[in-house]
This record gives sequence, structure tokens and C-alpha cells, in this order.
Amino acid sequence: MANTGSFALSCRCRTSLTFSSLCNFKFFHPFPVRFADSFPSRINASTQSSIKYFASSSISSANDTFTWDDVLRVSPSPDDSSDLRGYFEKVQLCNRGSELQSEFLPFFIEGQIVGYIHNGFADRLRSFTDVFVFPKDSSYGGRLSHYVTLHPMLGTPEDRTSAVGDVVKSLGEEWIPGIRNELYPVTSSFGAPVFFSLERAAAPYFGIKAYGVHMNGYVERDGHKYLWIGKRSELKPTYPGMLDHLVAGGLPHGIACGDNLVKECEEEAGIPRYVSVKATAVGAVSYMDIDGYTYKRDVLFCYDLKLPESFEPKNEDGEVEGFKLFPVTQVADVIRKTQFFKPNCSLVIIDFLFRHGYISPEYLGYLELLRSLRI
Amino acid sequence: MANTGSFALSCRCRTSLTFSSLCNFKFFHPFPVRFADSFPSRINASTQSSIKYFASSSISSANDTFTWDDVLRVSPSPDDSSDLRGYFEKVQLCNRGSELQSEFLPFFIEGQIVGYIHNGFADRLRSFTDVFVFPKDSSYGGRLSHYVTLHPMLGTPEDRTSAVGDVVKSLGEEWIPGIRNELYPVTSSFGAPVFFSLERAAAPYFGIKAYGVHMNGYVERDGHKYLWIGKRSELKPTYPGMLDHLVAGGLPHGIACGDNLVKECEEEAGIPRYVSVKATAVGAVSYMDIDGYTYKRDVLFCYDLKLPESFEPKNEDGEVEGFKLFPVTQVADVIRKTQFFKPNCSLVIIDFLFRHGYISPEYLGYLELLRSLRI
Repeated sequence: MANTGSFALSCRCRTSLTFSSLCNFKFFHPFPVRFADSFPSRINASTQSSIKYFASSSISSANDTFTWDDVLRVSPSPDDSSDLRGYFEKVQLCNRGSELQSEFLPFFIEGQIVGYIHNGFADRLRSFTDVFVFPKDSSYGGRLSHYVTLHPMLGTPEDRTSAVGDVVKSLGEEWIPGIRNELYPVTSSFGAPVFFSLERAAAPYFGIKAYGVHMNGYVERDGHKYLWIGKRSELKPTYPGMLDHLVAGGLPHGIACGDNLVKECEEEAGIPRYVSVKATAVGAVSYMDIDGYTYKRDVLFCYDLKLPESFEPKNEDGEVEGFKLFPVTQVADVIRKTQFFKPNCSLVIIDFLFRHGYISPEYLGYLELLRSLRI
Repeated sequence: MANTGSFALSCRCRTSLTFSSLCNFKFFHPFPVRFADSFPSRINASTQSSIKYFASSSISSANDTFTWDDVLRVSPSPDDSSDLRGYFEKVQLCNRGSELQSEFLPFFIEGQIVGYIHNGFADRLRSFTDVFVFPKDSSYGGRLSHYVTLHPMLGTPEDRTSAVGDVVKSLGEEWIPGIRNELYPVTSSFGAPVFFSLERAAAPYFGIKAYGVHMNGYVERDGHKYLWIGKRSELKPTYPGMLDHLVAGGLPHGIACGDNLVKECEEEAGIPRYVSVKATAVGAVSYMDIDGYTYKRDVLFCYDLKLPESFEPKNEDGEVEGFKLFPVTQVADVIRKTQFFKPNCSLVIIDFLFRHGYISPEYLGYLELLRSLRI
């Protein structure tokens, strides 16, 4: 495939982007609307002249498979390194559908919002009357519910886990594809008490917050930094063949971030514990993505690990096709100009680029891009 | 003075904090209210048990002067390093008065919001009828204005700068104390066209966004990191005698962040250009603080500079009493347990602690604290 040279994107994510839609991308703004002076309004209103800073970029689609050679062919562009548009596009790919929030019902447990369920998916849950209830629903089978909650008889985490698990099994692959038999904790926020545990594949159908650990493994040589990049196995059910971090994984129930990272380091890249314990927690990125009945609310804890030049990663679980070491500047160009990376990895790498000085405050859109990494 | 051991704070910032007020601190949340599951609600609702994680901390007030010896006496507390409460307090000290936003009128130029002006201060501006206008004001002298703008005759940045500058001079020290004869650009957002320039001391009275550069200068020795800390001169008009970064300064009109940093490095710490150009841009923090008629909306661009062990800072402009090198862990304790630091420096140091792995995802409140650094 290689570079298409076309700016219109048609990707795995089923999103079609144009320059216009990009400029109209509404970040979730942390201030009441009347106070907002966000990026899109600046672009759309009196400062059209600023648009000249966003030089047209060459974008590659990831519709088809690609090889390491395609990655290597992404040409460095010293002239347009200040053009942040390619990064904004990647943030947007992880934050689709904010205008569709009204199609979702809040999912409450013990007075706390733990998720959001699409009206259409909620209809599937209505027949499980001993598990899900829809208070204030004056028309059973209709869509007047104000929220969803669990049946009051399900008073303990164990009861809830079992009952909801049975529903997930009953709905099966037709409604919840990719069941992994891996449980995620359901809480009101990270570290809060666990109300119950839910099959990982079902999390986005219930709009549950999901957490992961992503690690940038890098090497420093003669004052220049290089990132180890993985390429996912073509056999993986999700994002086959796409580029990935050296190490990344979901955070299952009952394991701390740091411990999970050490485990993933061993399984995914053959990094022994005495090396991986030196990984540094450096922050987090987050995104909210609505696609059909799913509402992803993901938080990725970010880690950096500086590796010795002699290090060679070795995948142990068959999920990675191979690893290669690239100059950080080339990784930045791959992020900006292609869709080769698994979308959420882009956010973690953009965060790395910010923290390591590869994106400069002088670049137009710096603050807006920085803010867009955490919603 | 040294540690008071009291948790109730009475500080330069004229804010009294209690544990209750801390838990009720409302961060500006990036999502509509019905979607919010922010830190305060978690603490106040069903998870009271979580509060046990917030062990009581020993807090020092900065009412009076203090010495380096007082700083050195802040005892390390290995048992409570996971207690983030002291950091939340410092974020709160920079983000006061969000409940008072309704007392401010938006300040528009060319259809863009550039600031917010308190009703009371706006009353002072009403007599300058050839400079400020108050559209939709049906009761001249009353408070029915919907917004403030400049007189349409002031069509160029130069005209506006001159006219508003004359008003600022006319109001004088009584209304705008600390005039510095240093101009800040007035824009709708960073990097956007400059509508006019405004005296730095007047910026918070007009609710103009102000930008600064703050640099953490650090040394690495035997795998441990140390931060260079400055102590402001007792003669400085603002925050005299308080702890500060190695280098920090406001960003005046017409100078790029990186260039300004190099200039401040030279003036404030005697760091030559060939060293300071190696400083790395690592992100930004921001806060919004309402106090009386002032509405600060500050953004601080953060930089890290790794210095050689042999480096000794030397103040060139008389604004710094002295510098000392402290282990990062002790600086963290000083931030948590005292109010010795100039308040906004705390945010930049907390950001440093996040990026360098001194705050762990396992600590309760990690994500909320991380989010609170950028509003």
C-alpha cells in the first residue's frame, strides 16, 4: 500500500476525515461554553489566516496490510515538523461520536455513574428483568428510561459479577464480539471500590471506564533517542498487523499498574523483571469514543523505560510479529502521516513527544493538542 | 516559624482551607455535569472509607518569613508518600473562586472572548466612554451589561494599546497595584493574532490569559535526582522570600517561549546560552484564580534542564536571595507539607514529579491530581 497522498481518510475506524471536519472537531472543553475559547472557534472565526500554518500533509490509510518497508519509507519532512495537524487527526480518531452522547443512558450502581449504555443495546437488556432495571420507564420496551441500574436483589459484587456475566454469555458473540474471559473492574473512578467485574469485551457496551498500561521503550545514542516499535501479529483479533508500543496491555481486575506492566514486559517483549522495574510512571492519557452501541472511556497509564543499546526485545506470547528501533523523529512522522499505529498508541506517543521536547510551544496549536490528550 | 502542625491554613493567599473544603474543591470538569464522576463526588458519596488513605499531614503556613534552615527541617515522611492531599491543596490555592465567575463580564474583541472583567472594576471603566463600551446596557451605571468591548473607533492594535494604556495609567496604583511597564499580548488564545498589548499588572483585572515559562533545573547523581531551588529576594514586590524555580518568568509581547527562557536563564541564574538551549519543553500547566476584582488565567510552559553536577547558579538581577540543591523527594515533601513555594511553582513541580515517576498510579487520586494541573 504505502502512502496514498490523499488527505481524505478511509480507515479501519470507519471515519472519514476532511480538513473541514478536523477544524470542527470539538474537544471536550473544561469550561462552560460561554467561557470557551477553544481551538476550533479560533480556526473558524476571525483568524482564518492561521490556517496557512497547517500545511497539507500526506496521509496514508491503514485499510490494508503494510510491511516494515512501508514504515521505513515514510519520509522525514524537516520543513513541516511544526505542523501538528496529523497529531490532531489521530486524537480525533480516538474521540469520535461526542455528538451521540444523548443516545446513551447512564448506568448507575449505588448512586454512582459507572457507565453509559446505548438505547439500542439497553433494549437487548430489558428482557433480563432479574438483572437490569430501568427506573422512571413509563413505557416498557420504549425509550423513556432515564437510567439503567442493576436489580436491587444483586447486593454484592459477587452476585452482580455472576448475574451480568450470565447476561453477557447469553447475548454471546452476536451482540458482544471478541469475548476474552478476562474480567475488568467496574468502579465509579480509578481506585474506588469495585462494584462488580465485567467481561473485558463487554466493557464498551456498558460504557465502563477501562484502564491500561502503555510503555514507550527507548534507547539513547549520541544524544538522540530511538523508540522500540512493535508490529502486531496478523492473527490478532483486534488491530492485526498494526504498529504498537514495545509493551501495552489492559489492566485486569486485582492487579496494580506497576505489577501488570512487569508482567506484560515479560510476556510481550521478553524484558526481565530487573529491567522492567526501572520503568517510570510518567502520567496518563484518556479518550472517549462512541461507535455504534459502544462507548469507550479509556485511560492509559503511560510509562517510559530507557533501555540499554544492547537490548533486543523478544516476544513470548505470539502476539507480536516483530520489533524495530526507529529514531523518535521518524516515529513522529509515521504518527503524523500514516494510520499505521493502533489508534490509542498514537496518543501515548504524542504524550512522549511532548515530554521529551519533540513538540515545541512555538508550534501553533501546542496547548490545544496537549489538552486533547486528557479528556 | 517552621512547621505549625495545624491543618487549618492561613496564608498569603488569604484562603482558609479545611479538610472539608478540600474535599469539596470543584475541578473544572471536561464533561457535562450528568457525565461527571469527579474526585469530590467520589469522596463525598459512598466511598467515605477511601478517606483513610488521606493521612493527616503536617502543614506549615507561609504567613511569616522563613529561612533555608526551616526548609531543611521539613522532615521526610516515608510512610505517607502516597498521600496526595498536600498536592491537592496547592492546586486549590491556585484555583480559587470558581463560584464567583458570574460576577465577571466577558471582554470581547472582534467577536472573540479575550478576558473577563469584574462588575465592580467595570464600573471604574464606564467613565472612559471613548475606550470601553458596554453593549446591551439599558441602565448606564448599573450592572445590566452582558459584555464589555472596546470602542469601535479603536480599530488597530496600536490604537487599542495606547487607549487602554492611558486608562491603566489614569486608574493608577490605587486600582492596579504593581505596574511594571511590561506589556502582555491580548489574544483569544496562544499564538492567535494579537488584538492589543496590555500592562502586565493589569492583565488579571481584565482577565487576560497570561503566559509564562518555568524551568526545573535538576542534577542526577548516583541514580538520584536533585532540584535546584531558588529563594526569592525579600525585596520583591510579589511573593517576597518564597521558594521558586531555578528560572521562571512571564512571557512578554513579541518574544518566543524558548528565547524568553534563554534570556531568563541568563538573568536569573547565570546559565549561559550554550547550556540553556538544551532545556527541554515538556508540556504546560494552567490555572484560573479569582480573587476580588482579579481573574488570573495563567498558562505556564514547563521546561526541564538537566545540569552538570558542577553547575552553580548565580543570580544576576538581584531578584533571588540564593539557590540550594535538594533531593527531589525532599522538594516533594516541602510542597506537600508547607506553603514555602510561590503557589504556581507548586503546579510545575507536581508536573515534574508526575513525569519523573515520583507520583505513582497506585496512589489514590492519581488521575484527579494529574487532570487538575491543566484546566
